[in-house]
Amino acid sequence: VQAVVLPGDGRVVVSEVSDPVLGPGEALLDVRLGGICGTDLQLARGYMGFRGVPGHEFVGTVRSVSSPADRVLVGARVVGEINLGCQDCGWCAKGLSRHCPRRRVLGILERQGAFARRLALPVSALHVVPGTLADEDAVFAEPLAAALEILDQVPVEPSASVLVMGDGRLGLLIAQVISSRGARVMVSGRHDSCLEIASRLGLAIQPAPRPPEPVHDLVVEATGSASGLDEAQRWCRPRGTVVMKSTCAGPTSFDASHAVVQELTLVGSRCGRMEPALEWLAAGRVQVAPLRTAEYPLEEAPDAFAHAARPGALKVLLRMAP
Amino acid sequence: VQAVVLPGDGRVVVSEVSDPVLGPGEALLDVRLGGICGTDLQLARGYMGFRGVPGHEFVGTVRSVSSPADRVLVGARVVGEINLGCQDCGWCAKGLSRHCPRRRVLGILERQGAFARRLALPVSALHVVPGTLADEDAVFAEPLAAALEILDQVPVEPSASVLVMGDGRLGLLIAQVISSRGARVMVSGRHDSCLEIASRLGLAIQPAPRPPEPVHDLVVEATGSASGLDEAQRWCRPRGTVVMKSTCAGPTSFDASHAVVQELTLVGSRCGRMEPALEWLAAGRVQVAPLRTAEYPLEEAPDAFAHAARPGALKVLLRMAP
Repeated sequence: VQAVVLPGDGRVVVSEVSDPVLGPGEALLDVRLGGICGTDLQLARGYMGFRGVPGHEFVGTVRSVSSPADRVLVGARVVGEINLGCQDCGWCAKGLSRHCPRRRVLGILERQGAFARRLALPVSALHVVPGTLADEDAVFAEPLAAALEILDQVPVEPSASVLVMGDGRLGLLIAQVISSRGARVMVSGRHDSCLEIASRLGLAIQPAPRPPEPVHDLVVEATGSASGLDEAQRWCRPRGTVVMKSTCAGPTSFDASHAVVQELTLVGSRCGRMEPALEWLAAGRVQVAPLRTAEYPLEEAPDAFAHAARPGALKVLLRMAP
Repeated sequence: VQAVVLPGDGRVVVSEVSDPVLGPGEALLDVRLGGICGTDLQLARGYMGFRGVPGHEFVGTVRSVSSPADRVLVGARVVGEINLGCQDCGWCAKGLSRHCPRRRVLGILERQGAFARRLALPVSALHVVPGTLADEDAVFAEPLAAALEILDQVPVEPSASVLVMGDGRLGLLIAQVISSRGARVMVSGRHDSCLEIASRLGLAIQPAPRPPEPVHDLVVEATGSASGLDEAQRWCRPRGTVVMKSTCAGPTSFDASHAVVQELTLVGSRCGRMEPALEWLAAGRVQVAPLRTAEYPLEEAPDAFAHAARPGALKVLLRMAP
């Protein structure tokens, strides 16, 4: 089956890989649409020593299932969890497979990803897409879940002053999600085109320079850069909270004494729950149309990756099937 | 008046400094006993570019007051807040002068410290020491307040598994404080003599090496070392909490992606409230006698500082008056 392959040398190639083999309780999907994420770009550059088929943001249609009991799903349009737990540990029992120590991560860790014509996934990892939701919107379920995760982790008061650092794909989702709580959200970033989109989304732009006494109760670091954390904490008032969203290869250097003296709380935040993300998308509670930069057919994946890596690019989609 | 002076070149000297001048609402104290803290040792080495009289852990007797309304305090034995706020901002109004952006910090920032025969302090910063509490115990009020601050910041369940990294003065106070919540506390450190004291205090010692799947819900980093944070987060289970207590000059390097992927919460923690610290000491809820390593007269401050800096030294006291 045709797929995007990262050989581990920085290239992005399209080639034939072996057809996925269904395990027990799994479904075979025809992948329809995929979204390229910052992590995919990092994997292409060698993050985590990844080799193989990337892709963890997708929409597909169930083609077949290994268990007759799951036959009802055949033909359904679905998105999927990216963390596949062992289903046998305490984390999985709590519905937190995304922290299962033996998890595989779709297109990231020990599991072939979704940038392929066909994909096998456990039925337990699937979520049916509401009929009214277009593929082009549903493909945002995974990054929106990651944005919504912040609301599961951190209380956001309507009176809060919030700074979202990073005007990329994730930053603009996070800013919309936090705005929905009534908080006053500012966005900062380096790309005029993205900040313009932020403005059109009704978000305020953070003026520079940093004031001597920071006013933000909550700062979300979604710059994707290792230098973002130290900058983020300096925008945060004493006893405030910094949410860490960037995963960068290698160590991050920051002034930890500042965090101690200011008694900041730094919260690492990764993947979230898919169900509320689909609900939010179906209800139109966030706008994703302005975040779509381009769409490429699977055959042109190298161009798609190059486009997604350009400064100011937001979400670049990969079309696997019409 | 005779005082310890750090000239900023690494030396510790004892010399005459000008007598403190009382401002409005201030009290003049005869300092009785001081405690040397890790921060004092760092200041001696040049942290924060400090020059002057250090010392922020002390017990003294009120000699005189500038306002007749405060005359009742004359003769009282007191300890003092180390953060002196402007008394005019929102932080000070909330009783959080320790986060006042215009604060002075006793013996650390823009305010001469307590390692002197005489000390001037605002009456509002004083706390009367219960009569039953010996100087040698009361001098632990400030570091114990810093340990108790953790309980104000982080919920500690009786079922929690806790690791306190650092077998120094602060670590052994923190471990006792957290144990009082019923949590299972382990201590790790590099000094056999300190770990022996930890055992005598009823604390468990963390066996090495680190297990592949960390079990601690809460890890307190009190090593005083910049490498402590990365090590601390690796002892913490997913979604657990790391309390950061070390203030080191210069940047700290750590694998921030680990904190993001594990969704850890890192909490900076500094000074705490003095009132509960005095209550805990008076009630004997923590043992401080095993933490006293030595006592020196003011004149021998250079020896006292050298002793406090020795590996395995716990609290070294400076006697200013009998």
